[in-house]
Amino acid sequence: MYSSLRVVLCHTTHPGNIGAAARAMKTMGFSRLVLVNPRFFPHEQATAMASGADDVLQRAVVCSSLAQALQGTVLAVALTARSRDLSHAMLPLRVAAQQVGAELAQAEVALVFGTEMSGLSNAELDACQLLATIPAQSGFGSLNLAAAVQVVCYELRQALESTPQPPARVREQPLAAHEALEGFYAHLERVLQGSGFLDPAQPGRLMIRLRRLFSRARLEREEVSILRGILKALYPADDGKE
Amino acid sequence: MYSSLRVVLCHTTHPGNIGAAARAMKTMGFSRLVLVNPRFFPHEQATAMASGADDVLQRAVVCSSLAQALQGTVLAVALTARSRDLSHAMLPLRVAAQQVGAELAQAEVALVFGTEMSGLSNAELDACQLLATIPAQSGFGSLNLAAAVQVVCYELRQALESTPQPPARVREQPLAAHEALEGFYAHLERVLQGSGFLDPAQPGRLMIRLRRLFSRARLEREEVSILRGILKALYPADDGKE
Repeated sequence: MYSSLRVVLCHTTHPGNIGAAARAMKTMGFSRLVLVNPRFFPHEQATAMASGADDVLQRAVVCSSLAQALQGTVLAVALTARSRDLSHAMLPLRVAAQQVGAELAQAEVALVFGTEMSGLSNAELDACQLLATIPAQSGFGSLNLAAAVQVVCYELRQALESTPQPPARVREQPLAAHEALEGFYAHLERVLQGSGFLDPAQPGRLMIRLRRLFSRARLEREEVSILRGILKALYPADDGKE
Repeated sequence: MYSSLRVVLCHTTHPGNIGAAARAMKTMGFSRLVLVNPRFFPHEQATAMASGADDVLQRAVVCSSLAQALQGTVLAVALTARSRDLSHAMLPLRVAAQQVGAELAQAEVALVFGTEMSGLSNAELDACQLLATIPAQSGFGSLNLAAAVQVVCYELRQALESTPQPPARVREQPLAAHEALEGFYAHLERVLQGSGFLDPAQPGRLMIRLRRLFSRARLEREEVSILRGILKALYPADDGKE
């Protein structure tokens, strides 16, 4: 849990969005929710939408002003869909998330979200040091409030965890070694020839294509056994000699 | 708009989530929504939550099976919160989004989401070529369905708008579509049963393992023809009836 981060929701209209935002935060490991003058809170719709993040709601702090909500922060990032005629820095979310991630280890940071209908006021923006925007389809750029909280918290978590990527595929099964693969290809070739599918006088590129296909799959040891079992069942005449 | 992408929601319980997912898609420039057996649709809650994405809902296609929903796709990506004991490729979302982004220019791709409570079934996973997961807080990793759609569509848009990725693999040949793969698997299963290799009374996990192996390879259309030609040569008794 990243306790130096707070999510600030300003003048939220629909209590369901507060609950859904709490859930979104918790899925990404954040727990400090601050509400500036919510229209309804606490509220059963908030609890219903929190779905297991009740603890985040219960510990939510309700403030009467954004200034109060930002007490102790060294960086406040305003999320906004519109570009503004401001001298604020306005960054795409991914870039902003990297800055926030770098700050979090040493300081208190707030992510600030406005109302469902109109976002943050200019006065609220002026209380923040940075503007961030979620790149979206022009002409229809309005994410639901809780959906925006989810994307922002996801992107921040990615920035915080940008340690090396896990291996592309977790393997329980050992891969087939070179010689096991070659044994399979030889077996396959004998069967294809024996059955008449492959003419040894005109082999074309058939074996090469089959090798490439199975190379892409990165065959496991056990899968090679299965495939050879199938060849044996379908063509028992093969004597195993090359 | 990226018209070669479809978002597939399987057995969605709450119609509000369908509407919220439609809105999430539209904010990121995606518009093709496919619903597999939704519990309620159309529904006023879906319309209410779509909030301006009514056009996405109106053009949503309702299917009775995932197979139908995947017709014509060459890549289906299953979103899953749990890690599974599979030899499927299981990628973090950001990596998966880059692969999907590279495919979208040339082929039909599906993003497949399961139910609110239990996600996708194993049978549904087996119809997909790739598993992707949204990295989340362990112990509380359950994103709301529409929030997950929002994060995935956001990440995909980011991948599409970053500098053009080289395709994961330079393709000379078109990939096999869903229905061609299913035809091959059905043919293979008949031959394995007919030859006695597979006992229909005790099928075990054989077909699942073979599907996973070939899923990893991402079969080309012509490779499927070759493989079916081999099956026919090795087991001419098959009459092609299922």
